[in-house]
Amino acid sequence: MKRSLKEIAEALGARLVGDGSVTVGGVASIAPASPDDLVFVADEKYLAQALQSSAGAVIAGEFAAASSSSKPLLISAHPKLTFARAARWLQEQSSEKMPPKVNSGGVHATAVVSPSARLGAGVVVEARTVVADRVEIGEGTLIAAGAVVGSEVKMGRGCRIYPQVTIYPGTTIGDRVIVHAGAVLGSDGFGYVRDRDGRYEKFPQVGRLVIEDDVEIGANATIDRGALDETRIGRGTKIDNLVHVGHNCHIGEDVVIAAQTGLSGSIVIENGVVLGGQVGIGEHARICEGVMLGGQGGVLPNKVLRGKGVAFWGTPAKPVREYLKQLAALARLGKK
Amino acid sequence: MKRSLKEIAEALGARLVGDGSVTVGGVASIAPASPDDLVFVADEKYLAQALQSSAGAVIAGEFAAASSSSKPLLISAHPKLTFARAARWLQEQSSEKMPPKVNSGGVHATAVVSPSARLGAGVVVEARTVVADRVEIGEGTLIAAGAVVGSEVKMGRGCRIYPQVTIYPGTTIGDRVIVHAGAVLGSDGFGYVRDRDGRYEKFPQVGRLVIEDDVEIGANATIDRGALDETRIGRGTKIDNLVHVGHNCHIGEDVVIAAQTGLSGSIVIENGVVLGGQVGIGEHARICEGVMLGGQGGVLPNKVLRGKGVAFWGTPAKPVREYLKQLAALARLGKK
Amino acid sequence: MKRSLKEIAEALGARLVGDGSVTVGGVASIAPASPDDLVFVADEKYLAQALQSSAGAVIAGEFAAASSSSKPLLISAHPKLTFARAARWLQEQSSEKMPPKVNSGGVHATAVVSPSARLGAGVVVEARTVVADRVEIGEGTLIAAGAVVGSEVKMGRGCRIYPQVTIYPGTTIGDRVIVHAGAVLGSDGFGYVRDRDGRYEKFPQVGRLVIEDDVEIGANATIDRGALDETRIGRGTKIDNLVHVGHNCHIGEDVVIAAQTGLSGSIVIENGVVLGGQVGIGEHARICEGVMLGGQGGVLPNKVLRGKGVAFWGTPAKPVREYLKQLAALARLGKK
Repeated sequence: MKRSLKEIAEALGARLVGDGSVTVGGVASIAPASPDDLVFVADEKYLAQALQSSAGAVIAGEFAAASSSSKPLLISAHPKLTFARAARWLQEQSSEKMPPKVNSGGVHATAVVSPSARLGAGVVVEARTVVADRVEIGEGTLIAAGAVVGSEVKMGRGCRIYPQVTIYPGTTIGDRVIVHAGAVLGSDGFGYVRDRDGRYEKFPQVGRLVIEDDVEIGANATIDRGALDETRIGRGTKIDNLVHVGHNCHIGEDVVIAAQTGLSGSIVIENGVVLGGQVGIGEHARICEGVMLGGQGGVLPNKVLRGKGVAFWGTPAKPVREYLKQLAALARLGKK
Repeated sequence: MKRSLKEIAEALGARLVGDGSVTVGGVASIAPASPDDLVFVADEKYLAQALQSSAGAVIAGEFAAASSSSKPLLISAHPKLTFARAARWLQEQSSEKMPPKVNSGGVHATAVVSPSARLGAGVVVEARTVVADRVEIGEGTLIAAGAVVGSEVKMGRGCRIYPQVTIYPGTTIGDRVIVHAGAVLGSDGFGYVRDRDGRYEKFPQVGRLVIEDDVEIGANATIDRGALDETRIGRGTKIDNLVHVGHNCHIGEDVVIAAQTGLSGSIVIENGVVLGGQVGIGEHARICEGVMLGGQGGVLPNKVLRGKGVAFWGTPAKPVREYLKQLAALARLGKK
Repeated sequence: MKRSLKEIAEALGARLVGDGSVTVGGVASIAPASPDDLVFVADEKYLAQALQSSAGAVIAGEFAAASSSSKPLLISAHPKLTFARAARWLQEQSSEKMPPKVNSGGVHATAVVSPSARLGAGVVVEARTVVADRVEIGEGTLIAAGAVVGSEVKMGRGCRIYPQVTIYPGTTIGDRVIVHAGAVLGSDGFGYVRDRDGRYEKFPQVGRLVIEDDVEIGANATIDRGALDETRIGRGTKIDNLVHVGHNCHIGEDVVIAAQTGLSGSIVIENGVVLGGQVGIGEHARICEGVMLGGQGGVLPNKVLRGKGVAFWGTPAKPVREYLKQLAALARLGKK
């Protein structure tokens, strides 16, 4: 379903320069773009390339407005954001016109849904899923093929639960949460007590997991429930593939955690923190608001990292400038 | 199902101080505890807080016996262990009184169970599982929704196999083994032979995987079968989420391996070893009895780490005192 | 099904020394080998042990030809490769004689296969799989229990898709590709745009994933689709368990990536690269042809590593000799 640039400009609040009757149906990167595609340029140095491409139109910053190209432009203060929104908006326009994949009611014949589960309007439950007792699922949520939703899970509206996800009993999930294939939510934490013979007995893992609105969780990530209390993932936080979050962690809002990072137990990650990939954080550590921690960085148990906008790196993590000095000193030493 | 403190004290061998007719039904941490809950205090400095909480009773060490509180106490030489056991005991009391979720026989109508599989008494096979040919499953074991049990797998009694677990053909699993959602047991190891053209051909991965009694394996962990011989996980060993164990590894008893640690092939981990998170160990290395290795530590191929109770850290791993000296020296150097 | 050494020697192009009428049925390592088994010796120092074993015959290099043992030998310039091929050949001989597990047609009654999916001859679709609309699957491919194949996935001939694998819509897979249990192919990449309020909005993840012929992917690995363009895994590349490959990565041919390694976005890995376990590579980095990078090594964003056959190690990765000098210098410093 193609839309005119005029419509798109209005929907997204961008300024149209050029022929608004041109229509596009999707987004692309510059090189392979077709006349059906929108592309974007955030940096002036790529503008010429975009204008010479086959794209139907270019989303760009104010720097492009004066260009003499005949290609239509959508001018925005934040071209990448406008591009992301255009992609979503175009997709939504298409979906509205398309018949839904599953009839209303939306439960595939091979899904096993408990009679005590309550599904909101427009919920789609695909083939081979299991939805256990007393589950509540909000309006318009998708439970994709093969997912298992444990008893008493509560899930909000507009979520997308991809194939093979497992949600342990009692987990609470907000609105518009996306969980990619194979992720495990609410599993037992890793806690044992050693007895007199040196054998490990399981410490109770009977807490719960709460995931707030607009969280996205990557494929095969694992997030443990609390031991006695709760594990919590704050609103808008984005978690990449194969990340591990241990029991009792409290992760704030708008946190970004890249792939394969691991948080052991009882860690606090405050709002707006950015963790690179393969970061490891020890028990009871706290990463304060706005801290950034580079890939493979390590934080010792009980440690506090502070400093809004301060980048840390290394193991044990230190401010990146300090760490780079150490690396430079070591390099000199290695050459002696 | 609530139980009196008198019953609990007798069941767990704790000494009751105070009113034994008080009843509790579960466990909690101190702050949110209700009068229905048991809490515990292992360190005297938290005793006052526990005594002032709403908890029904407090499990504590001998240090609490002289307290003048009216709150009932269960005195134990190892309060955390007693607390863990109380949690399990209370849960067991409840389960005995509750009807089982599935009828005896216990195979859900949507499970696909081979006619040649043999299931012990009380085995529960949930919805959408697959149990292949000649599988043997011991008494009381749970195969949760969506798990796939390959042909000729032998599994003991009282195991809990959580949703979406895959067990490759021929794997042997002991009694009371817990495997969390999404874990993969017995997959092919990573072994190839390079031919004259530089292409990799698969080396046979036809060995097996043996998991002994009382092992727990975390969500989305992966444990490969032996190439020609076996991979073995010893009794009582606990493996956290997203851990990788390569082919031919032999892991001893009562070993603890934290999340995201990876063992490449043919490694020996002796009894009682503790590996932190994100540790990486090279082929043919040996970690001797009782060694502890800190998070993100790395061990080179063929290396042997020795020393009961000795903590190692860093890559390549060295005794932690030595490593800390190096870190300190480097920090000084970075400041010059 | 046992075969004579004469037949095996002919099939594999090895030189028979001794009694060619001896028959074997499989392969084993030396110690547990039975008279039914072939074993191999690549290094002369293990020859005596192999000759004294119970194995039916020994595959060995030219060095063994002069041995005075009465045990039959298969002499090969590359004994390990000949052994791997013998294992596969013996298995194929057996399979030919055995009835297939599933009837021709090969779709289990509990599989959910879209009427618009096209399955080649001999395709086996096991229990509880989901094969969505317009999927194409080539001749002889196996879709094992519980796998989910999204709409418009194209898959070649002779692939093995193990249980619980998820393949997102639109993914293209070549011939003879092996994907182990729980792996996720074609999931959304990790890309967001921050809005004026500091909230993250999803950048479109609408590209695709292409996996070429003869690739093997380990259990619970995750490989993201391109954001706008494609992610590509080249012919013959082998990827171990729990590896993460981010969006837009281009991995060449005959690359080996060990367990738990993570590639963030838009990385180029050229042909013949070997990455150890737990390696982490930053965005837009390039690892040039034939480079080797040791376990836990880290490469910064935009960095280029060059040098056919050169080994790198450490974070940030440097030539291993240089890195070892730094480690040695640091060790000396720590002792002062």
